[in-house]
Amino acid sequence: MRLQNYFKDNIYANRGMTLESDINQTNEYYNLHNIALIYKKPTPIRVVQVEYPKNRIREAYFNEPSTLDYTGVYQGKYLEFDAKETQSKTSFPLSNIHKHQMEHIKKVLYYGGIVYLVVRFSALNRTYLLLGNDLLRFLEEYDRKSIPLDYFEKFGYFIEMKYAPRLDYIKVIDKIINVKECKKS
Amino acid sequence: MRLQNYFKDNIYANRGMTLESDINQTNEYYNLHNIALIYKKPTPIRVVQVEYPKNRIREAYFNEPSTLDYTGVYQGKYLEFDAKETQSKTSFPLSNIHKHQMEHIKKVLYYGGIVYLVVRFSALNRTYLLLGNDLLRFLEEYDRKSIPLDYFEKFGYFIEMKYAPRLDYIKVIDKIINVKECKKS
Repeated sequence: MRLQNYFKDNIYANRGMTLESDINQTNEYYNLHNIALIYKKPTPIRVVQVEYPKNRIREAYFNEPSTLDYTGVYQGKYLEFDAKETQSKTSFPLSNIHKHQMEHIKKVLYYGGIVYLVVRFSALNRTYLLLGNDLLRFLEEYDRKSIPLDYFEKFGYFIEMKYAPRLDYIKVIDKIINVKECKKS
Repeated sequence: MRLQNYFKDNIYANRGMTLESDINQTNEYYNLHNIALIYKKPTPIRVVQVEYPKNRIREAYFNEPSTLDYTGVYQGKYLEFDAKETQSKTSFPLSNIHKHQMEHIKKVLYYGGIVYLVVRFSALNRTYLLLGNDLLRFLEEYDRKSIPLDYFEKFGYFIEMKYAPRLDYIKVIDKIINVKECKKS
């Protein structure tokens, strides 16, 4: 039983890496092809004790993130997003997003930034981009602890897996920017 | 002599904190008054050893930063900058900016982001904003290890110290955005 759990956890862990490595590969592709500059922010760490003169950190703790993992610039615009995987076939648990991150999403939207989640339903091998606006609308309209797959199908953008770039999410961002610009003029 | 050095270093250290705390206070002001969302990125740390189950980091090292310290969003636009102090009364040493950071500045400019340095000449109590473009032009035109104060006076933007916000750098950004928008139309 324990061994089974061990393997189960390991498969989960590998799957957890997959979306992240797909995103990283995509960001590298964007960078190499002069499309966009997107990078992963460092993990916030609270340093308690440093050993000199080697500057070796001997005691530190991981802090809860208060922003999303990836930031970048595309056509002068501010982008920020997080990549999340779920093993569920039916819904995405909102416990994946910390309270501070939710507040941060609201703020980025307020200031006109483009903010979203890239959510992969690993068991279904389906990846969606869900815009911050649509995430917040869900929270306002429904008192639920998870977002059903239906909602992603209806309001999210399905992102096809390709060889390169693996997850061409900038295509979706392009659509959104065009809609915004059209509304302006 | 040693004691003198001690005090000297301490004053320097405090001054080193001053620009950062002025910037942090300014960013808080912007946040509170719904002007802009600017935040400091976590320091990049390479974690080597973690003690479970407490998730206590027992060995880690500071990495050289490859981006600038502050990022944010203002009117939908991507901002990124670093805050640097110098004790020199005549020039700003370029050794303050790492090679990777310089590459990063070029990239942010390429993608249409707004990138700059906020440089304080502490001994003169003068703070300037220098746009990435003007920084790169200096590097191209001059083969020097520091940027003279003159250059800041000519091509930088002087930022007045106030009570709140302490360093109203968004005023400068406003000018730049307006110039850009005018050129477009």
